Amino acid sequence: MEAKGEGENVTSKKALKKQQKEAEKAAKKAQYKKQDSKENEQSVADEKDISEGCYGTLPLIQSQERIERKIYPLQELTPTLADQKVWVRARLQTSRSKGKQCFFVLRQQKWTVQALVVNKESIIDVEGYVRTVSKKVWIVSSASPRLPLLVEDASRPEGTDDALATVSQETRLDNRVIDLRTTANQAIFRLEAGVCKLFRQFLDGKGFGKAFLAQSPQLYKQMCISADFEKVYTVGGVFRAEDSNTHRHLTEFVGVDMEMCFNYHYHEVLDVLDQLFVAIFKGLRDRYCEEIETVNRQYPAEPFKFLEPSLRLEYKEGIAMLREAGIEMADDEDLSTPNEKLLGRLVKAKYDTDFYILDKFPLAVRPFYTMPDPSDNKWSNSYDFFMRGEEIMSGAQRIHDAVFLAERAKVHGIDVKTIEGYIDAFKYGAPPHAGGGIGLERVTMLYLGLHNIRKTSLFPRDPKRLTP
Amino acid sequence: MEAKGEGENVTSKKALKKQQKEAEKAAKKAQYKKQDSKENEQSVADEKDISEGCYGTLPLIQSQERIERKIYPLQELTPTLADQKVWVRARLQTSRSKGKQCFFVLRQQKWTVQALVVNKESIIDVEGYVRTVSKKVWIVSSASPRLPLLVEDASRPEGTDDALATVSQETRLDNRVIDLRTTANQAIFRLEAGVCKLFRQFLDGKGFGKAFLAQSPQLYKQMCISADFEKVYTVGGVFRAEDSNTHRHLTEFVGVDMEMCFNYHYHEVLDVLDQLFVAIFKGLRDRYCEEIETVNRQYPAEPFKFLEPSLRLEYKEGIAMLREAGIEMADDEDLSTPNEKLLGRLVKAKYDTDFYILDKFPLAVRPFYTMPDPSDNKWSNSYDFFMRGEEIMSGAQRIHDAVFLAERAKVHGIDVKTIEGYIDAFKYGAPPHAGGGIGLERVTMLYLGLHNIRKTSLFPRDPKRLTP
Repeated sequence: MEAKGEGENVTSKKALKKQQKEAEKAAKKAQYKKQDSKENEQSVADEKDISEGCYGTLPLIQSQERIERKIYPLQELTPTLADQKVWVRARLQTSRSKGKQCFFVLRQQKWTVQALVVNKESIIDVEGYVRTVSKKVWIVSSASPRLPLLVEDASRPEGTDDALATVSQETRLDNRVIDLRTTANQAIFRLEAGVCKLFRQFLDGKGFGKAFLAQSPQLYKQMCISADFEKVYTVGGVFRAEDSNTHRHLTEFVGVDMEMCFNYHYHEVLDVLDQLFVAIFKGLRDRYCEEIETVNRQYPAEPFKFLEPSLRLEYKEGIAMLREAGIEMADDEDLSTPNEKLLGRLVKAKYDTDFYILDKFPLAVRPFYTMPDPSDNKWSNSYDFFMRGEEIMSGAQRIHDAVFLAERAKVHGIDVKTIEGYIDAFKYGAPPHAGGGIGLERVTMLYLGLHNIRKTSLFPRDPKRLTP
Repeated sequence: MEAKGEGENVTSKKALKKQQKEAEKAAKKAQYKKQDSKENEQSVADEKDISEGCYGTLPLIQSQERIERKIYPLQELTPTLADQKVWVRARLQTSRSKGKQCFFVLRQQKWTVQALVVNKESIIDVEGYVRTVSKKVWIVSSASPRLPLLVEDASRPEGTDDALATVSQETRLDNRVIDLRTTANQAIFRLEAGVCKLFRQFLDGKGFGKAFLAQSPQLYKQMCISADFEKVYTVGGVFRAEDSNTHRHLTEFVGVDMEMCFNYHYHEVLDVLDQLFVAIFKGLRDRYCEEIETVNRQYPAEPFKFLEPSLRLEYKEGIAMLREAGIEMADDEDLSTPNEKLLGRLVKAKYDTDFYILDKFPLAVRPFYTMPDPSDNKWSNSYDFFMRGEEIMSGAQRIHDAVFLAERAKVHGIDVKTIEGYIDAFKYGAPPHAGGGIGLERVTMLYLGLHNIRKTSLFPRDPKRLTP
């Protein structure tokens, strides 16, 4: 590497020279090691190293000197840069030799570039001319030569050639840091952040304030309402101590919750929630199409369909549809998971939507704080939202009268003493209010048509998994 | 209440009539109760009720019928609405009688309006003509006649007339839902949401992605870096099991954390953090001035001063300033709380700023994953940020090499087995990275010059408080 011709982006020649010398020393050392070891799968069988001094391992970057060198993101390597000398830093996805020449594929988040003999997943600095063979390569961070999984294998589309290696869900989660490097995973978590951004953006525009709650959102967001915040939302970790080992439950998930007061009827809130989901679905469709495509390349799925305004059915109507399809169930019976999915298919066939709202659930199947229907207390002012036939939100008008609330808690066998702080919050005047909450991972999973919630949680936790 | 003249905003006359009848029935019942009970402090000594039929308690709003009536927010009651009939729903802050007439003050979040005989803190619906005496009043949600604290007392500026009632911090927190209704508290939590919004806005603009972590942020946000997310931030509940009973510690707080990879020197990250804080301070000053004024009316404080770019000192320089002021301390000794505050005063006197950065802390006082200084491992690539002389952020370049990390963990007496998942994350190539995190409540407290972190936590938790 010569200091001349480095271009105007390099300010510290001294620093570069020093770095170069250290790197060359390290390169020789690394080469020695390589010849000595059979472990390195990529070791090349050649007699004389014609690239000596042009590659090697950089010393650990401990912030020795600040170098003002432009490092190009892979997506900027377009024909406009032709014949310009550039540096890139990327992960080595794979390499192959062809005669005396060796090529490698570099990866940076969602982008890959066709670009020596380095462990896969190592991070390398490459200097070269755009569209010509690269000149110099330095390892910034070396990966172990034996990887528990290959990003290439983990990136293979589902249901392709059985002869090719695939990576099981368990191996992925055991080695989540490598698994998360696939382009599909990079896209999934960008889209998940998008769900949250669109949620906030819509509610911010409606005059909501954000409540910061370390405690579980349900009761405390209602207390915020009694404290006159009027419209609140909260995003935070929620913990669930139930032993459910399903494709859609986690013991830790991100709760995205809202609560707002209304004037006369909880449908004022239901309208806002309806608009909120339409805004999220439109935002994802319009602003995250690249991410959706990237995910679909690995996990093919039907595009998500929704109506505007959303389809709303009463619980009774849902039950009637199920009965028509031959299901026997009582009026005030809860929806079982198979019936929930069947209803989703019936709704899709009849209304062509993957999203709908079921209103006025039986009171008996809802929590104690749910407001009964004023005309018939067999029913309640409560609703569930569904995506691709699975429940993604439960909500309701809550009881805002302390005496009535305590009465309902007793009916449910709850010791009123244990929830005193909560009931007290309604003693000093609370406005009528309603709300609901979603699990961020579940909404992302169902929007993308993925089949396991572990795919949309960075570091999933379930009754059987505590690490990494 | 007559249905005629209700204006074009009312669509359901039937609903109104029904509601009116129920309300009148309830009103009579309520009046009967009132005459019967001595508990009601506001009961008026008059013989004949000239307002009969114009006030009372509404039945519990159970979403009986949906009424499309415009309810005016208090801040919209301006002279342009003169002589127009309007409905408002608000909390009764206080009421007083003057001869045969009775006035009351209504409150809605940050606004109050001058407007019978209802329990304070009840929520009422009022119909009237703007700037004339209101006509009809219905209680939407009745508060207990005996309140544990009065919002009026809780709103009194600090350090005023000793003869007037004040409310202790303990009483406030025991009855947090009422305490949070003060205009100062409404403003504090709006500003707190602002800190978070500005944090996200700045980092979103710099290409950061949001990581959703139920787990503690420090280790997992680094794992996100090793998983190629490059720049991540996370906002979530953090739990702290230390027995510290101070004005600035909580056992549950909101952690706002960022982490990013860099090319050659951790000062690339320090520059981003510097700009981030300047963006937050400017955003608060420019967009939240109304909230700051509202808080200052109750809690007077000097305006927060900062420089652009921020003042940066090396730890050594800070120690030198303290020694000059007569403090004896060793080179690699940590800053005690009194010395930290003294240094803040010295910095303010010399540089006229309430915000500064102290860089290059002694390695011995930092966590095991801190990168040592490459030229002298007595020091480290780590920094603290201070506001009004109190630490609000600790950050550093982290060790990104698995072998070196395990070595440093051992030096700190940490069993490497217990952090295997964390160390493994660096085995497969991780880029150099640095970051930091703030406690949202502490930053808000110090920005506003408040003296207790419980003032900036909605439902504070400390070793002595678990409810409400």
